[in-house]
Amino acid sequence: MSKSPEEEHPQKAFGWAARDTSGVLSPFNFSRRDTGDEDVRFKVLYCGICHSDLHMVKNDWGMSVYPVVPGHEIVGVVTEVGPKVKTFKVGDKVGVGCMVGACHSCDSCANDLENYCPKMILTYSVPYHDGTITYGGYSDLMVANERYVVRFPENLPLDAGAPLLCAGITVYSPMKYFGLSKPGTHLGVVGLGGLGHVAVKFAKAFGAKVTVISTSLSKKEEAIERLGADSFLVSRDPEQMEAAMSTMDGIIDTVSAIHPLLPLIGLLKSHGKLVMVGAPDRPLELPIFPLLMGRKIVAGSAIGGMKETQEMIDFAGKHNITADIELISMDYVNTAMERLAKADVRYRFVIDIGNSFHHLSN
Amino acid sequence: MSKSPEEEHPQKAFGWAARDTSGVLSPFNFSRRDTGDEDVRFKVLYCGICHSDLHMVKNDWGMSVYPVVPGHEIVGVVTEVGPKVKTFKVGDKVGVGCMVGACHSCDSCANDLENYCPKMILTYSVPYHDGTITYGGYSDLMVANERYVVRFPENLPLDAGAPLLCAGITVYSPMKYFGLSKPGTHLGVVGLGGLGHVAVKFAKAFGAKVTVISTSLSKKEEAIERLGADSFLVSRDPEQMEAAMSTMDGIIDTVSAIHPLLPLIGLLKSHGKLVMVGAPDRPLELPIFPLLMGRKIVAGSAIGGMKETQEMIDFAGKHNITADIELISMDYVNTAMERLAKADVRYRFVIDIGNSFHHLSN
Repeated sequence: MSKSPEEEHPQKAFGWAARDTSGVLSPFNFSRRDTGDEDVRFKVLYCGICHSDLHMVKNDWGMSVYPVVPGHEIVGVVTEVGPKVKTFKVGDKVGVGCMVGACHSCDSCANDLENYCPKMILTYSVPYHDGTITYGGYSDLMVANERYVVRFPENLPLDAGAPLLCAGITVYSPMKYFGLSKPGTHLGVVGLGGLGHVAVKFAKAFGAKVTVISTSLSKKEEAIERLGADSFLVSRDPEQMEAAMSTMDGIIDTVSAIHPLLPLIGLLKSHGKLVMVGAPDRPLELPIFPLLMGRKIVAGSAIGGMKETQEMIDFAGKHNITADIELISMDYVNTAMERLAKADVRYRFVIDIGNSFHHLSN
Repeated sequence: MSKSPEEEHPQKAFGWAARDTSGVLSPFNFSRRDTGDEDVRFKVLYCGICHSDLHMVKNDWGMSVYPVVPGHEIVGVVTEVGPKVKTFKVGDKVGVGCMVGACHSCDSCANDLENYCPKMILTYSVPYHDGTITYGGYSDLMVANERYVVRFPENLPLDAGAPLLCAGITVYSPMKYFGLSKPGTHLGVVGLGGLGHVAVKFAKAFGAKVTVISTSLSKKEEAIERLGADSFLVSRDPEQMEAAMSTMDGIIDTVSAIHPLLPLIGLLKSHGKLVMVGAPDRPLELPIFPLLMGRKIVAGSAIGGMKETQEMIDFAGKHNITADIELISMDYVNTAMERLAKADVRYRFVIDIGNSFHHLSN
């Protein structure tokens, strides 16, 4: 586009952006489109910091378009709706997650699986339908097509609820799809970070028996006493792992570091399912024989469709499920990113956008 | 056991056995148990040579107990039944596949999935319930519990039908379990050997569109004109592979050599399933990102339960599905094994046991 980010759209917007692969974020003036016929505009109050934001600001996946305004766990209050908007009105509490568009004509879209549409449009750093680059939720206002807007239940706190829009749906969707949401299911959760701790909460709400699998004992007390897990397994302890062999119906693996799959496959009962929701940047070693011997599955899953995202948020409201968060101010974001890179957060940073930008009005 | 193989049971038997890791087979006198209350005894007429026989005679998997009488695609005619046998009588055409026992009390057994029972007993080279080592079908007679005996449809030729007992059920079962047997399914079959060529026939009988995926063009004409595949894809041709991206609902991968999974995962539509039925002896590289992006699955599957094996054979009878075989005499077996190691057979060797051992009577 020939116009600057500040001039390409009519609505002034303000956020923090990374300008290069240093990933350092700093204040950024840009603009949003006018609220279209099917659009919802909302004042952003909170935005979660997802691990993928860290990758995107540093262009680790080679797809970032600078300046990058990250953020796809965005919540706030509606300030304007387009004339054709049916489900939202000014004052509603709403959220936008990882995507803001798709083709709406493919099989995936027809089946409410916009997340698997080949033309799915991410919430930030990719071209939108009009050719302009999308900007995420580390910003004061958001405009999105109502199909991509989720209604927040009245009882769900907006700050601790924000991470559900990515972390929540990422773990909820595969539990449903792979038949791991039935009461009595024995579910393993590998890695107790932003995704893992929410996985424990959803699994418990589904009535599952939950075992947290972690490399060290350090999170045991927290996993069991605070998050409600039933048991804890140290993956580096061969005796513990041996004793737990063939006991699990499914495992949600949230780890994005390189790690061995063989011990996890061993934990599964026959016909068990190991679902990867983290994204290691190199291939993992897959032993085939143990898969064959128990008709086991290794699968991947990425977020969820919009209909299911609404269902997940409603379920979270009903069961009072939120993320455990550390609320920060916008100007702490670079420090937060550094801490996140070291997994030094329990379990999700959420930026208090409303109070960071209180000098602005939308 | 202190007794010799020839003396440990009352019924004299004769077959060919491998004595050591050379894998060379030679004549072998041994014995079978008396026909028990629930047992079926049959005169073996034909026995297929499975690729796993090659591994077992050489102890490639470290589990062989010598002498090894291989063979788990065994067919013949019933000569005696125990007093409690309900479903078979003398003169029936029957077969025994890869297993001859299980615990009959676990979840898998209760669900007709004896093949996934942790105590499943293989047809040869493992301890049976009585502690004696099992011997396979490269032999003149067979005794098995009726639960592990399959009735052959009248119209199915015994020689070309024999390989279905392993190769057939190995590909049939995952097509059913993973929802790939619906008419209109687009199924890829990787590798056109003993398993692959039968997979093409079953898939076509299910009403699938079948694409054979092979490393070279050499089998194209045969795949399409003789076996009835709809198309043929050379996996080493990047343009062909690119054009076929995201077109398949599922893939049955029969290759036991080390090979890349990434291109195969790429061929799958979203929610597609890559099912491994070959058993590479080292781990394969599994890229996680492509799995996530389409909620794809890599799974394993091993033979099938006895109920499903009978269902498969009945289906084969109804649709006239047999293996393409090269019928050999017992004394050709060592040459056949050498040729099999080079994949020099279209597509399955079957030993004409009845005529090889015609000097014997059972």
